[in-house]
Amino acid sequence: MSEVRVAGVGLTSFGASPNRTGRDLFAEAADSAFEDADVSRTDVEIVRYGNFMGELAEHQGHQGPLMAEAAGVSAPATRYESACASSATAIRDAVVSIRNGESDVCLVGGAERMTHLGTAGATEALAIAADDLWEVRAGVTFPGAYGLMATAYFDQFGGGREDLAHVAVKNHVHALENEKAQYQREISVEDVLEAPAVSEPLGLYDSCPISDGAAALVLVSDEYAETHDLAAPVAITGSGQGGDRMALHDREHLARSPAADDAAAEAYEDADITADDVAAAEVHDCFTIAEVLAIESLGIVDRGEGIAAARDGYTTVDGPVPVNLSGGLKAKGHPVGATGASQLVELTHLLEGHHPHSDAIDGDTVVAHNAGGTVASCVVHVLEVVA
Amino acid sequence: MSEVRVAGVGLTSFGASPNRTGRDLFAEAADSAFEDADVSRTDVEIVRYGNFMGELAEHQGHQGPLMAEAAGVSAPATRYESACASSATAIRDAVVSIRNGESDVCLVGGAERMTHLGTAGATEALAIAADDLWEVRAGVTFPGAYGLMATAYFDQFGGGREDLAHVAVKNHVHALENEKAQYQREISVEDVLEAPAVSEPLGLYDSCPISDGAAALVLVSDEYAETHDLAAPVAITGSGQGGDRMALHDREHLARSPAADDAAAEAYEDADITADDVAAAEVHDCFTIAEVLAIESLGIVDRGEGIAAARDGYTTVDGPVPVNLSGGLKAKGHPVGATGASQLVELTHLLEGHHPHSDAIDGDTVVAHNAGGTVASCVVHVLEVVA
Repeated sequence: MSEVRVAGVGLTSFGASPNRTGRDLFAEAADSAFEDADVSRTDVEIVRYGNFMGELAEHQGHQGPLMAEAAGVSAPATRYESACASSATAIRDAVVSIRNGESDVCLVGGAERMTHLGTAGATEALAIAADDLWEVRAGVTFPGAYGLMATAYFDQFGGGREDLAHVAVKNHVHALENEKAQYQREISVEDVLEAPAVSEPLGLYDSCPISDGAAALVLVSDEYAETHDLAAPVAITGSGQGGDRMALHDREHLARSPAADDAAAEAYEDADITADDVAAAEVHDCFTIAEVLAIESLGIVDRGEGIAAARDGYTTVDGPVPVNLSGGLKAKGHPVGATGASQLVELTHLLEGHHPHSDAIDGDTVVAHNAGGTVASCVVHVLEVVA
Repeated sequence: MSEVRVAGVGLTSFGASPNRTGRDLFAEAADSAFEDADVSRTDVEIVRYGNFMGELAEHQGHQGPLMAEAAGVSAPATRYESACASSATAIRDAVVSIRNGESDVCLVGGAERMTHLGTAGATEALAIAADDLWEVRAGVTFPGAYGLMATAYFDQFGGGREDLAHVAVKNHVHALENEKAQYQREISVEDVLEAPAVSEPLGLYDSCPISDGAAALVLVSDEYAETHDLAAPVAITGSGQGGDRMALHDREHLARSPAADDAAAEAYEDADITADDVAAAEVHDCFTIAEVLAIESLGIVDRGEGIAAARDGYTTVDGPVPVNLSGGLKAKGHPVGATGASQLVELTHLLEGHHPHSDAIDGDTVVAHNAGGTVASCVVHVLEVVA
């Protein structure tokens, strides 16, 4: 079975790009990835691309072939949509394809254009990732859903708004040196606590922003890397996907994410690692509570202990297992279809020593956690230095 | 490498189902497929699902987990969107997964709900499969695009409206015994020629209808079929995917479909067959001209001869290679996300002897051709009787 190597990665700045289309954004990310990879576009055999709200935001479906063309690639292209986990889902199928010899070179990634919709418009568009009949029509958009999850967590495990505030503060600190981040600006616990309420107990600074952006990776088989003498020391060694019931009211727990538990377990088994091996993680902190749930699912902390991790410095840049050294969705930004791929871009930089925080990690095994909806979908990838 | 067997198939009626949601439709198709398969829902390891316009038609994205739930399945679920080729694209990745031992039992399929949008609304929603910036804003929706393709074909190879009319007449004849078809009604060449123009040279009866419907298949590995003593004589022995530039004006030819050429070549090589082995085909006849292009790409007829195939009886039920024995998109209906999967449902029935036209075919190798947009995406599958 072939090993999947990351030959090159590319990322646009995240934030507001009002005058650029989704295809402009993806073209830029793909350009960077090809330049980084030193791989010829003509060698690409498949394109796997994630996008969430293109139909609503750009009146554009069928983005697979469109984005292949934008990237200058002539190859079969598929668009994946798993809400906010769209691009990690796309990458997962590329991993399967390369491993099994179906292809040797894949362009993967994702893009989203959202800011032109405004906060209310984007929030409404994001709501299509929830159950339209039973959640959205009752008024539950994602800030509401994650607010319910935070309340349930506090009830079951304790903790409160101040603990969550430390997650936001940490991720803003991490983003200070990330030139692609939407916010390179420090915030304080007081800022978070005093910010306007969005959906109790979550406030404005517990929430990730609305963002435009794109991310791309060139993935190759180890045989291709060797034949072409590529420096591609980072491999995707584990991949896992989990699913859950769509609507919150159909779940057994509001303060747990079995889809993420399953995705992590599968990815760790696949990579033959345990949670103890994880030196750093990029996780899906669309709201501060989401990071808490994610690090528990990943086994970075025990159940019920996630709430204290940022506050106690366990997941900060100088802690034992730094989480979201990119700034996370919270500070780096969350262009939905790009997010999962951007996590792998960040982790590759981290492992290759090109990340501002590369020196902060102790080990060469890292994980990415990309979730859709209220974690009805989740994909986890393990990356390791292998060469 | 495992062989992919079709354990069970299910289909709703195609047509207008104004009081049923997409999830209602998919639940019915999945129920039928599980009943047909005699496979336990708890054995399903992944769900691969195609849907095209759920965001616009039902305000519902993230349909992977939603449809898994509707089908009574608890497994990671992914939604694929490749315009009208969405469900064949989903099936293709399930084929890769089973072959390579990633999973043994997959629920695959697709659904679409469109008729409540009305013809104008559905046509506008369908247009998101074209290039929004350079085609749609110039007024090119799909009837217009296929009209241009038909004109280009006539210019290059000859033929005319009457030849195309025979395609529609044939497919309506084929559907007469298909109880799930949207139209079980014979039409004449005169009916087609006298029907209102939609986009010159195509008229109303050159065009497939707007439809609601769903299709599902339970796919298993040959090892699983053997262990569980399943009667699953039909295998998916070949799979291929092709891509092309998105917009018509960026193509080298308007009267050829290289994405379909590539998909067919890959699928035939994969199955180790040639076009001469093909006993019957289900092809993507969204417009009559599309069937002409499809059978040329599949090698059922030579380039430039597709236009005469229906008229000359080559692809009729009593011809040497019957095409669209289900009635095709034209008469069976075209609930977009369900179409590719429904082709495999029909072909399985055909090979297993349960199809009204099972006696019409001479051989046990058949192919399905599912196209997206103006064939910027195409997936071809080969099915054979192997047990």
